[in-house]
Order: sequence, then structure tokens, then C-alpha cells
Amino acid sequence: MKMDSNKVETIFQSRVVETDNLSRALEKIAETSDFNGLYILTDTNVLREVIPYFDDFLNKYNPEIIVMNAGEENKSLQTLAEIWERLSDSEATRRSIMINIGGGVVTDLGGFAAATFKRGIRFFNVPTTVLGAVDAAVGGKTGIDFNGFKNEIGAFAPAEKVIISSQPLASLPYSQIISGYAEIVKTALISSAEFYTELIRDCPVNDNAKLREAMTKAVRVKERVTEEDPKESGLRKILNLGHTAGHAFETLMIEKGTPIAHGDAVAHGLLVTLILSHTLRGLDSKEIYRYADGILKPLYKRIAVSCKDYDRLEQLMLHDKKNITAGEIRFVLLDGIGSPVINIPVPSEELRAALDIYCDTLGL
Amino acid sequence: MKMDSNKVETIFQSRVVETDNLSRALEKIAETSDFNGLYILTDTNVLREVIPYFDDFLNKYNPEIIVMNAGEENKSLQTLAEIWERLSDSEATRRSIMINIGGGVVTDLGGFAAATFKRGIRFFNVPTTVLGAVDAAVGGKTGIDFNGFKNEIGAFAPAEKVIISSQPLASLPYSQIISGYAEIVKTALISSAEFYTELIRDCPVNDNAKLREAMTKAVRVKERVTEEDPKESGLRKILNLGHTAGHAFETLMIEKGTPIAHGDAVAHGLLVTLILSHTLRGLDSKEIYRYADGILKPLYKRIAVSCKDYDRLEQLMLHDKKNITAGEIRFVLLDGIGSPVINIPVPSEELRAALDIYCDTLGL
Repeated sequence: MKMDSNKVETIFQSRVVETDNLSRALEKIAETSDFNGLYILTDTNVLREVIPYFDDFLNKYNPEIIVMNAGEENKSLQTLAEIWERLSDSEATRRSIMINIGGGVVTDLGGFAAATFKRGIRFFNVPTTVLGAVDAAVGGKTGIDFNGFKNEIGAFAPAEKVIISSQPLASLPYSQIISGYAEIVKTALISSAEFYTELIRDCPVNDNAKLREAMTKAVRVKERVTEEDPKESGLRKILNLGHTAGHAFETLMIEKGTPIAHGDAVAHGLLVTLILSHTLRGLDSKEIYRYADGILKPLYKRIAVSCKDYDRLEQLMLHDKKNITAGEIRFVLLDGIGSPVINIPVPSEELRAALDIYCDTLGL
Repeated sequence: MKMDSNKVETIFQSRVVETDNLSRALEKIAETSDFNGLYILTDTNVLREVIPYFDDFLNKYNPEIIVMNAGEENKSLQTLAEIWERLSDSEATRRSIMINIGGGVVTDLGGFAAATFKRGIRFFNVPTTVLGAVDAAVGGKTGIDFNGFKNEIGAFAPAEKVIISSQPLASLPYSQIISGYAEIVKTALISSAEFYTELIRDCPVNDNAKLREAMTKAVRVKERVTEEDPKESGLRKILNLGHTAGHAFETLMIEKGTPIAHGDAVAHGLLVTLILSHTLRGLDSKEIYRYADGILKPLYKRIAVSCKDYDRLEQLMLHDKKNITAGEIRFVLLDGIGSPVINIPVPSEELRAALDIYCDTLGL
């Protein structure tokens, strides 16, 4: 697949809106929408840190604000039922609209509540974290955790618009920005050499306006991919780049008692992926070092991995939930930057060789 | 809209399967489907009366059978959560399939459970009542009652196949068949003069094989209409023929302490509709008498309506939940048999004149 993220808008009407004035962006949506009843879902953290940016909008439109407790443990049937009840008690109609302001938990849960209230009302997402923007706000995957399983119950339902702003970034811890940034880098790697080169050159993690631009580009790429493959039957798998090894690192570190953030694990997984792309698909070896020196080493901590962990890592990759082929590990790899290929079998010896190069590259 | 129900299959691939051997029909689905985990949802009544027809299938495929309590009061979040839990506990996957066998409650609830488990698994509907077949099994409206409101929570999700069989008809009370039959007559009126003439000529209510044929035709018409307008933005309104007056009769009779079945109320509403179609749209007046003498009088009891009830009936029609124009009553009417027109304003004096003719025609 070859895709130039800069040209995405000319191909289809993007749902992604970029703004530096959240209040104004929401006012514009309200002005141009025909609705009857306006609801905001947010969580306790966002209420404190981010909702102040919406003052003008709140004063003008006086929406009903539903506040859920922050945290993945509240992405539950109980919270969902409470939101349904609030909508129902306040006589929300099929023409009401809902605006989800928060991280992935809020947009996943709020999207599902909206998708199922009266068989579906329109909703808008305002992600307030980097990961939430790139990973959860577009693509239509909504849902709740249930019976001990993540996203066990849910629906495919796209937000009508997704609003990306630099304003919420100001209150995010640096570590959270860096972790979310790994998903932006991944998106650049699967979509565009130009976008990827910009990231390496500009390293936008310390400049919120530049970071917002990079987020918007990444979200539009994800949007494009998920519109072409809404139910994850093929193309969408490219979004899994770096995640087969990433998930294995993530679980290994939990098992070692030194857990790392999801995004940090993906950042390490991407290095393994670039190495395998070189050995199995002929990707230029300089891409390995460009990534290691330009992104991984400057931004992400090393992790305690050695050759003693290879058995366990291989086992974890074999049992990755996205791995549908029993007894075989398959990766998304790159034929070139912006040219991903899916379902590439990775034999054990190739994986171990790649992990050796990974350890050497990072001096582990 | 002009639509010949006999030609529906040539236009698009129908999901509706007609059979006299339910077990064989399900075996065929199982043989030709690629799945992993097979679930049946049914209710306590159906389990006793209808499930015996599935013996061969059950012995061969050994599906997990989930039995809910019968009755609208169980179309609830609690039942839904129990079904989700059963699916989750037994490790149903995205490739599992669910077969809903029952009336509208089972197909609505089971459809919603399937549409939301792991963001949607495939499901099949086997309606076991006439009304359930014509009204609920196709069209993709799934859901539960919540917070005191019918279908407050739900999703649009179509069954992969809908299986219509004469077998369950054997255990239905005659009154229930007649009531459901009104929806078949309605469907003929909006779709095809030929289909309608067949119904008047054959009166299939006493012959289960003929009734199954009529049901299948009606379900295919509904399927066609709902595929063209899945989210009820226009065309789908034609399915409301007879219901504006029908709902008013239904509520009036509840208020009088002599409730009647929904279908019986629709049968009476259809007469009012045919009268208004004559006075406002020039439908041949002989259609009024053809319906009254060929269908309404032979099959449905008269109801105690007189000119003293006109005020209340008008009030009820003004507040019908499907009436979106404040202060004005709008009907679906017929320009001819098979040619419905939607959103026709009915002034008070025309409505009262039509109710006069209605009472005269039935000798009320």
C-alpha cells in the first residue's frame, strides 16, 4: 500500500478537524448542525484540566455535562447504563448529539453509548491525549470492557467529526506525550516517507503546535485506512506495525515487575520490525539506524531485554491475540517507508537473529 | 413507489429463506457457513412448542442453547447482560454465530446481543409468530426496552438470513395469527395489487402452507423497503400504513378498558386509511368495500367506536410518536393499491368525515 498522508483530504472528506480554539470549533459544529439536545461526556480528570478551554461554548449552548470517573476500570456496563439513563431521563431524542471529550476510555464508551441510544445518535470526539487521538478517536471502534475482557462489548460506529487541538496537550505529562508519539511514528512509517522524515527532522514532541499537526496527519491516515477497511478484514492490519513485538515486550516487562507504557513498548517493537523488514523484505539497512538514532534512543528508555528472554518473547508473539495463524508468527513489515506488507511469516531463527541485532543496536 | 413483490428476488439477493423443514434449513446454513461456536437464543415458550422441530439439527451440531424467560418484560438490560455473559464465558469468538428462534422479543434482543458482542457477530432469525416474522425479523432494528421506554437502546443490524417456516404456525392461537395477518395485508396494500388480490381471494389464514407463502412475500417486501431506507429517513415510512389510526384505536380501547391486539387495531386503521385515500388521493371507492367485505368484516371483530370518540381519536393521532409535525396529523395514504404516498396532511374535517364513513361501513 502506498499512501501520501498529505493528500488524504483531496481523496475523501475527512472527519478530522484541526483547531487551536476548542470552544470555537465546537461552536462551529453546533452552529452548522441541526440538533435537539446537546450532551457532553467527559471524566473527572478532563473536567478539571481541559473543560475550562470550553467556557465560551458552554456558556453559549448550555449542554448537559455527564461526568464519569476517570480510568479504564470505569469503562464498564455500569457506567454505560448510567449514561443511557441520563440521556433517557433528560429526554434526549434521535436528533440529540453527544460530544465525547477525553482519552480513549471516554471516546470508546461515549461512542458506544451514542451508537446504541435510540439505535444511534450522532457523536463527536475531542481526544485529549496523544494516544487517544491517534489510537481511539477515529476508526469507529467503540465499546466497553465486560466480564474481564477488554472491548468485549461494542459496536463499529464512527464519530461524525474528530477535533484535534493543541490545548489539552499543555496539561499532559511529558512521558504520556512520548508514549503516544510512538503511534504517530508508526503511522508515518506505514504511510509516507515524507511524513516520517519530517518527524525525524522536527521531533515535534516539545512543540505543541507542531505536535498537533503531526497528530492530525496521523489521525487522518488512520481514518483513511479504517474507512477502507472498517471491520478489520485486511488493510487495517497495517496499523498493527510494531505491535507484535511491542505487545511481547509490554507483557515481558509486566512479568519482570518493571512495566512500561504501551507506546514505549511499541517504540521498541518498531525497531524489531525495521530489522525484520531489512532481513526479510530488503528494506535499506540505514532505516534501522535512522530510527534507532533519530527516534528510539533520544526519546525512549532502554528496556532490560537479553538473549535469555528470547524464548518467552517468541512464545508471547505466538499467542498474540491478533495472531490468527496457529504455530506461526506473522508480522506487518515494510518493503519501504510508507509501503507496509501484512501477514509475513517470521521463522524462529529470523526472529532470534533480529532480536540479536536489536540488542546490539541498543547496546543491551 | 411501485413495487412488485413477486420480482423482489430478481432485484437483490434476499436474506429470506422459506422452508417447511426448519431443522434442514438450519443444517444447510451451518454446512455453508464458516464459523466457530454456535449459539441458539430462544424463550421458555418456544423451547416447549417449537424447538422439537429442530431435533436433527441440535443432535448434529450440538449448539449452546440460551433460554430467556418469555415476555416483553424480559426484553431488558438484565437479560441482555446475561446473554453477553453466556457468550463471553463460553469463549464465543468474532466468528461465532447466533440463531434467534422466537417472536419479536427474542429476535430484537438476540439481534442486539449479537450486534454488540465483540463489536458484532453474525446472527440468523427464525421468527415463530406471524407478527414477529413480518414486523421484527427483518429490517435490522434490534434492541431492548430501557428506563420504561420501548426500544430505547439498540442498533441497526440485519440478520444474515431470516427463515420463514409453517411449522411454528401449528402451535399459534388463531387470534394471534389473525392479528399478525393484518401486517401482511398492510404490506400487500403498499406493495402490489396482485399480492393483495391473492390475499383477498385465498384468505390464507386457515392454511399454514399458504400463510407461510404470504408471510414470506410480506417479509421480502419489508426487507426490500428497509434495505433502501435502513435508518427510517423516508421510504420506510410506508410501512406505517394504517398505523396512525391503528395506534389511536389501540390506545382508545385500552382507555375504555377493552384492549384489543395491535394487529386488530391496525386492521381497523387500514379501513380509515383506505377511506382517506379515496377522499384525499382519489383511490377508487370500491377498494374501501373490497377491504371491508373481503378482510375486515370476515376476520376482525368490530370495536366500540362512535362519534363521541372522534375528539379523543384526533388527539391521539396528533400525539402519535411517529407524527413529527406538531399540530398536524399526517397519514401514509394510497394513490392506488401498491402505490403509497407518505406525509399527507389530513385536516380535522376530513378525518372526521372519514371516521363517519368508517362507522357507517361497519354499521357502528
